[in-house]
Amino acid sequence: MIIQLEPSITEAQKKKVYDQVKSYKYKGTFVKTQAGEYLVGIGKSKFDVRKIGHLEGIRDIHIVSDDYKLVSRKWKVNQTVVDLGDGVKIGGGHFALMAGPCSIEGEENILKTIDHLKENNIKIMRGGVYKPRSSPYSFRGLGIEGLKVWYRLAKKAGIKIISEVMQVSQIETMLEYVDIFQIGARNTQNFNLLDELGKVDKPVMIKRGISGTIDELLYSAEYIFSAGNEKILLCERGIRTYERAARNTFDINAIPILKEKTHLPVIADPSHGVGIRDHVEAVALASVVAGADGVIYEVHDKPEEAFSDGQQTLSFNESSTLVRKTRMLLETKSVY
Amino acid sequence: MIIQLEPSITEAQKKKVYDQVKSYKYKGTFVKTQAGEYLVGIGKSKFDVRKIGHLEGIRDIHIVSDDYKLVSRKWKVNQTVVDLGDGVKIGGGHFALMAGPCSIEGEENILKTIDHLKENNIKIMRGGVYKPRSSPYSFRGLGIEGLKVWYRLAKKAGIKIISEVMQVSQIETMLEYVDIFQIGARNTQNFNLLDELGKVDKPVMIKRGISGTIDELLYSAEYIFSAGNEKILLCERGIRTYERAARNTFDINAIPILKEKTHLPVIADPSHGVGIRDHVEAVALASVVAGADGVIYEVHDKPEEAFSDGQQTLSFNESSTLVRKTRMLLETKSVY
Amino acid sequence: MIIQLEPSITEAQKKKVYDQVKSYKYKGTFVKTQAGEYLVGIGKSKFDVRKIGHLEGIRDIHIVSDDYKLVSRKWKVNQTVVDLGDGVKIGGGHFALMAGPCSIEGEENILKTIDHLKENNIKIMRGGVYKPRSSPYSFRGLGIEGLKVWYRLAKKAGIKIISEVMQVSQIETMLEYVDIFQIGARNTQNFNLLDELGKVDKPVMIKRGISGTIDELLYSAEYIFSAGNEKILLCERGIRTYERAARNTFDINAIPILKEKTHLPVIADPSHGVGIRDHVEAVALASVVAGADGVIYEVHDKPEEAFSDGQQTLSFNESSTLVRKTRMLLETKSVY
Amino acid sequence: MIIQLEPSITEAQKKKVYDQVKSYKYKGTFVKTQAGEYLVGIGKSKFDVRKIGHLEGIRDIHIVSDDYKLVSRKWKVNQTVVDLGDGVKIGGGHFALMAGPCSIEGEENILKTIDHLKENNIKIMRGGVYKPRSSPYSFRGLGIEGLKVWYRLAKKAGIKIISEVMQVSQIETMLEYVDIFQIGARNTQNFNLLDELGKVDKPVMIKRGISGTIDELLYSAEYIFSAGNEKILLCERGIRTYERAARNTFDINAIPILKEKTHLPVIADPSHGVGIRDHVEAVALASVVAGADGVIYEVHDKPEEAFSDGQQTLSFNESSTLVRKTRMLLETKSVY
Repeated sequence: MIIQLEPSITEAQKKKVYDQVKSYKYKGTFVKTQAGEYLVGIGKSKFDVRKIGHLEGIRDIHIVSDDYKLVSRKWKVNQTVVDLGDGVKIGGGHFALMAGPCSIEGEENILKTIDHLKENNIKIMRGGVYKPRSSPYSFRGLGIEGLKVWYRLAKKAGIKIISEVMQVSQIETMLEYVDIFQIGARNTQNFNLLDELGKVDKPVMIKRGISGTIDELLYSAEYIFSAGNEKILLCERGIRTYERAARNTFDINAIPILKEKTHLPVIADPSHGVGIRDHVEAVALASVVAGADGVIYEVHDKPEEAFSDGQQTLSFNESSTLVRKTRMLLETKSVY
Repeated sequence: MIIQLEPSITEAQKKKVYDQVKSYKYKGTFVKTQAGEYLVGIGKSKFDVRKIGHLEGIRDIHIVSDDYKLVSRKWKVNQTVVDLGDGVKIGGGHFALMAGPCSIEGEENILKTIDHLKENNIKIMRGGVYKPRSSPYSFRGLGIEGLKVWYRLAKKAGIKIISEVMQVSQIETMLEYVDIFQIGARNTQNFNLLDELGKVDKPVMIKRGISGTIDELLYSAEYIFSAGNEKILLCERGIRTYERAARNTFDINAIPILKEKTHLPVIADPSHGVGIRDHVEAVALASVVAGADGVIYEVHDKPEEAFSDGQQTLSFNESSTLVRKTRMLLETKSVY
Repeated sequence: MIIQLEPSITEAQKKKVYDQVKSYKYKGTFVKTQAGEYLVGIGKSKFDVRKIGHLEGIRDIHIVSDDYKLVSRKWKVNQTVVDLGDGVKIGGGHFALMAGPCSIEGEENILKTIDHLKENNIKIMRGGVYKPRSSPYSFRGLGIEGLKVWYRLAKKAGIKIISEVMQVSQIETMLEYVDIFQIGARNTQNFNLLDELGKVDKPVMIKRGISGTIDELLYSAEYIFSAGNEKILLCERGIRTYERAARNTFDINAIPILKEKTHLPVIADPSHGVGIRDHVEAVALASVVAGADGVIYEVHDKPEEAFSDGQQTLSFNESSTLVRKTRMLLETKSVY
Repeated sequence: MIIQLEPSITEAQKKKVYDQVKSYKYKGTFVKTQAGEYLVGIGKSKFDVRKIGHLEGIRDIHIVSDDYKLVSRKWKVNQTVVDLGDGVKIGGGHFALMAGPCSIEGEENILKTIDHLKENNIKIMRGGVYKPRSSPYSFRGLGIEGLKVWYRLAKKAGIKIISEVMQVSQIETMLEYVDIFQIGARNTQNFNLLDELGKVDKPVMIKRGISGTIDELLYSAEYIFSAGNEKILLCERGIRTYERAARNTFDINAIPILKEKTHLPVIADPSHGVGIRDHVEAVALASVVAGADGVIYEVHDKPEEAFSDGQQTLSFNESSTLVRKTRMLLETKSVY
């Protein structure tokens, strides 16, 4: 049960609502976000919803049968639009392209990538400065200094930044320099990180866990929302299966399923989802048609030299082709 | 190594080629299909290919590094076109729609389905008369009598038939009445069935195993090809994973990967691939864009009453929408 | 619902029972096996069981809530004992060891293996004469002639034979020469094969499918039982997962779960379950302790030269050690 | 390559070794742990090892072909023994039992559990005070206050404590009160947490990721070791597969495989591995026989009322039986 509260609700009124909820043996949790205030009730008993509905300070009550509540589409039919400012929006009809290198490498590569993005009218650049690596001996990214350089150059070019945050202590460090925090597939259920990202007013994109379920992804989003941050993007990036012909198995089903279950925008990551450069385009376009609100992919001026776990990075030419085809498909979708 | 033989090759010349192949410690297998004759050589040693190439009766020699040979795209870059006659072709630019009920139920349902197909210009009807069922107590299909009724009605309407064959003894029984034999996901590695289907001159569509790899699917096709039948379609129908939000995980990656590895047409089965009626369209369209040569799906005049393992059958309306969108996307693809 | 019928039941009495079952909207299936006659009722309505119980010709009625019926432990608490004759029994406290090469190779290897078995008091020899192979170009076994040689030698030595049957037409060919038919992991859901094996009076060991569920294995056993053959063994041989450190993931959980769900004996196949020679012993012994009624494994006088899909075949020495430890653990189990 | 350094090595000598390593294009990383000092070299070129071996300050050089180095058995054949003090040791022949509730609940439950442990001569108690929960609305454990109470009672009884740490900030908080830090399955690749746990002198038990590979588990251990902490335990707790008959699929293969690959002790968690109370014993005993150095499981005085994600908690009686059988099997193992 989600009770939307009026902005004008008083503390006394809130207490009354809370007590009423509690009287039905529901656990009540107040949630205050950028967009509103809610009382989430978790319980099982049946009761007459009107007994809460008539209380003062309440805007609306929604019965949500899903185990996740605030991210469910059952109470919020309209899609969430995540607004990055400067006219850059994601979701609710606003399709987002995000492209860039796996790892931020240096000024020259950043500048070339920015040029490529601008030529293709892509507004958001991806890139890692903190890299999760299986081996402790591997390169772990340029860190905050790399991010600062990137920020300076992107800012000047009017390009937004999405970058992975790996631990709580990095949130504050990165806050000023990113437009979207990315949570990597190994941290999808790093609940402390989720909690803390719920407390900042910056969009967060959560990647599905390496073998995470769709429900777990929604629960992780619920962590962030219930901690105060409604600006959430979900990202399908392939799951781990027995099949070895591709790096991961991109779960195309997840896109329409997520779109049905949640009001949050859904982004596809074909670079990790298939992990084979020649097939990134096919999977990207499939995601667009299946209903994704955006695509994030790896691109590099010299793909063969790019730092990357797989051989999945597109060249600028391939990227431009992908963008062109994506836009043609979006146009076709808009008329059929 | 694949040695394409001339139609005019003599037995004596064949023996010479065979002996030469054997002299390099290769295992040689003669393969005679509807389209040609081949000597497949399996071995590891290196030798001067020209020593075979100069022999009489040889059209061409191809070194194929894949473990499967005849189905590999390494020797046959042009896509195979499977021709069902009457202008109905699959592959090589010919996109195929196949629709119909999970199980053939009776004359009325057949007729309604045929009408629906004709209205939408769909040339191939699917339907099971032999149904593989987990439980021995479940309905196992109408059998050959059902197929005969279906054949009579489809023939009159100019509609082609695809239907599952479950065992060797059914091949002869069904042969006259089907245009495409379907091998179900539980029989992908029923090697005797594959062998026998290699001996008939009817197209065969092989479904990927329930948790079959892409390579295993190609090997199964190699069985049929090497037994003499080149008319093969491959079908991605979802794989078994840990995810429970959908019936299977449709492996969209498999479509571009198969298209790269083999010259055989690739068909998508979104009905089984996602198993959720509301999402069949999204997965079907995604497959089209990802490069599938066709889509096979379940449709029924009364989906709620359809016999089916899942809740995945489209209504006629939903099917018509799917067809319309598919054709718009194919048009967009043809220009981008 | 399972209705056990008296041997003396008349046709008229059977009809009465059937009609009564039908009157509750249950689907009734008569099953006649080596051990008895049953009427299996499939339906959902509730009714007073005594109304059937008072009918003549009935021994007992069991409500079985599982979807599989005759193989369920819900109606038959005592474990099934499969009797191969000559004092060789499996299940119900009789532990079985079955060892031999992956593939039957020739007289010398057979004789050496038989000697090894006799030295270790192993009563059952395994070996394939029909081999399911992914590639059509691979060796597919010696066939019936190999089996006949093996049979002659084993018979003389008092050794029982278990060997894989791949298709219906092989059943009759093999019938005289095997003591247990084995159904391979690719044929677990080859329903026609199951049906036909239900009609012979020879024990059948069903291997779990490559990614088959425990329930599917039980359903496959139900096929055989309901077709008339109660002499069934189930075999856990590892499942296909994402983990690549071993050939398969041996599902040790499956052993106690199967023992709880069914009265049929459960055999462990550590050779395929782990697929690494050095670890076959650990997995075999673990299975013994977890409750398996037997272990089947690969052994060869020259493991390095053995025909085998993996590097999993034990040497005679390793096999003897495995047998010794197995027996010590069985003894410990018998006292704790 | 691992270069073991002498305790007496000087900074100048270290520099010489480092430069020599670097001259072969190897990346060198100095590692200082409780037990020694190492230079880990990562690279691919071949060179004459003696050219390093003759340098001063070096104890030994080991070529380790595995991608993980310090945790590999290739350089350290003898098993690591983790010593908790007071005679409690794990590994190298010292078998460890760890039992307790899923979540620490309060003084009464702690005391009853401690009594049960002491009666069964179990030296280590498990229990969570920080609980990772999919849903943000679920109970997340008693936190540090619960741990302090537990510590006071366990200390008095001479019982060691193992408890999960979920984030970097909890390490210092918990340090005084735990004997073993546990890393949960969702944090196996929380690399920052691993790094920080490498800096404390307390044993760490790493659970395998929910669908983590064996290699990933070893890499995670390498993080801790290379950050300075050699006191590491690995824990197999089941992996996520398609099978739904059990909560997870306990990977029994992982036990002998890990024992072969690493010198670190391997612990089995049958409670999570099978997740079905009646089958915990079977899986625990199987693990013992397969070579585990210890078993960790859930026990509660009132299992039905225990806080737990699954229905997997043993009663005291069941636990006592498990302990008895475990010890009998260990004895059998010691003589066969």
